Amino acid sequence: MTSIAFIKGYHLPLIHKHWLFLVLMLSAITINSQESIASKLGYPADARLLIIHADDLGVAHSENAASIKAIEDGVVNSASVMMPTPWVLEVAEYAKAHPETHDFGLHLVLTSEWKNYRWGPVASIDKVPTLINEHGYFHAGCKPEASLEEVEVELRAQIDRAFAMGLVPTHLDSHMGCLMQSPELIEVYLRMGQEYKLPVMVSKAFPEELIKKYNVKVVLEEIVMILPKQFNEGLAAYYNEAIKNLKPGVTTILIHTAYDNDELKAMTIDHPEFGSAWRQKDYDYFTSEECKELLEKENIKLVTWRQLKEAYFSDK
Amino acid sequence: MTSIAFIKGYHLPLIHKHWLFLVLMLSAITINSQESIASKLGYPADARLLIIHADDLGVAHSENAASIKAIEDGVVNSASVMMPTPWVLEVAEYAKAHPETHDFGLHLVLTSEWKNYRWGPVASIDKVPTLINEHGYFHAGCKPEASLEEVEVELRAQIDRAFAMGLVPTHLDSHMGCLMQSPELIEVYLRMGQEYKLPVMVSKAFPEELIKKYNVKVVLEEIVMILPKQFNEGLAAYYNEAIKNLKPGVTTILIHTAYDNDELKAMTIDHPEFGSAWRQKDYDYFTSEECKELLEKENIKLVTWRQLKEAYFSDK
Repeated sequence: MTSIAFIKGYHLPLIHKHWLFLVLMLSAITINSQESIASKLGYPADARLLIIHADDLGVAHSENAASIKAIEDGVVNSASVMMPTPWVLEVAEYAKAHPETHDFGLHLVLTSEWKNYRWGPVASIDKVPTLINEHGYFHAGCKPEASLEEVEVELRAQIDRAFAMGLVPTHLDSHMGCLMQSPELIEVYLRMGQEYKLPVMVSKAFPEELIKKYNVKVVLEEIVMILPKQFNEGLAAYYNEAIKNLKPGVTTILIHTAYDNDELKAMTIDHPEFGSAWRQKDYDYFTSEECKELLEKENIKLVTWRQLKEAYFSDK
Repeated sequence: MTSIAFIKGYHLPLIHKHWLFLVLMLSAITINSQESIASKLGYPADARLLIIHADDLGVAHSENAASIKAIEDGVVNSASVMMPTPWVLEVAEYAKAHPETHDFGLHLVLTSEWKNYRWGPVASIDKVPTLINEHGYFHAGCKPEASLEEVEVELRAQIDRAFAMGLVPTHLDSHMGCLMQSPELIEVYLRMGQEYKLPVMVSKAFPEELIKKYNVKVVLEEIVMILPKQFNEGLAAYYNEAIKNLKPGVTTILIHTAYDNDELKAMTIDHPEFGSAWRQKDYDYFTSEECKELLEKENIKLVTWRQLKEAYFSDK
């Protein structure tokens, strides 16, 4: 597997045409904030810190159940929740029952990507016409041309609903990377974090001028996500290499944990990439002894967005 | 089982307090329209005609898959679809692929009754504030005090979306019987059928003056649905007796077919009545040889809403 170049693509599972754009964004901008993050969390400056982050909570019962199991029994230690999805209350119930131990952020959603299983905005559909299709669902793919005002209305509606449901998010991130499709969208994304006093999932690959403009203090070293080519070449080998090659600083690995059952097979029909069997394999790896032992052997320290939020956004 | 009085309750699975109201509604109003229905469909006047009708399509993949299987392999011959539910497109795809053979109506929805799995209106939530809770979902139970204007806005939105999705409904009925909670709601229900030229599921138990006012021609002899007491005493015995005791005219048996799997167990959590195991038992009975043989032995003729629609609403 040594020939595989790591593509630290952001979370864009479905819109393949956007990958190139993101890979191009992953240029080597140097921002010397990582040492201070490690120190601020109480680790040596060269510590290799990792967030193992399950995306897409709320999307299906299968995804919720497997992700919570992978958090409780595996090494997954963080996740983010899609507020417009049908099963989000199941996650909110879990979060309220485990107020201190979970690390759930909001996976801000502008898409509804599955063929026969859809959802629409949290905001009133009258208010966000550029975000929806003819049936009132979100579009299947990112729409960089959507109204920025409507994007902001919808993101505020999602964040406000989370708090109203008793979810207290530890961070914000972006489903399918839709909020990374233009500098203007990145600005909306960063502004949400600033206003709601929440860390936003950004890495050194983001535009330096925006990181400075919004005074973003929590900047990840890298955001790692397996892509179809690596998946086909071997998931465990990819993750093993990714873990061995972690750099000092905070990295996050974005994964999608679910059970490969009837519900998830139907949800991901006609879409093997990031599909049902894929998600089961993510679950299997991140609940395996192999992964756990590798993290110990490599002396990787698991940290959470909750720790980062408390370190940088606490009033203390 | 002879001591069991048949309660031909309408479809009110969750709101138990409303049952009494409905049972009281089931008084013996005599409308002599049944003979003409049988004749119009080409049967003798004393024929015992039956629609075996699966409710709740769209609610879950498990419900869709089991209901379609029960239609294809069992004796179930009709169903109705909940437009606001997450899985409705799966049903629309099936309907479009089987344009002549399916018999799908619309199960008009004003509620979102499951604990951790919810949906909201098809209409923009700004337009229907009395129909939704603080999170934008439908209320869990029927709200007879909801604005009639908003109910009508939402029902039109559901029917219009069905046609826009390529579903051509054969009839209208009412999820959880919410449209039977007041004479005014029944009027909205009957008006929808009149305007969209669709038969509405009503029986002789409905108020006679409204049936006359709206010139309703398709009036069922009875609407039969098993209730928790009968379920607990024995589902197969109940249905066997119901079939043996069918009266001349058109009766419908309302059922809920789904697989008792992880998805449905989670959906129906904390709600054994009309829950996951219940729906599996409905599936098991209406795909059994026992049921099929009984229908043959009793000389019951299965008819569909499609036949009724064509007989009474066709331009021919």
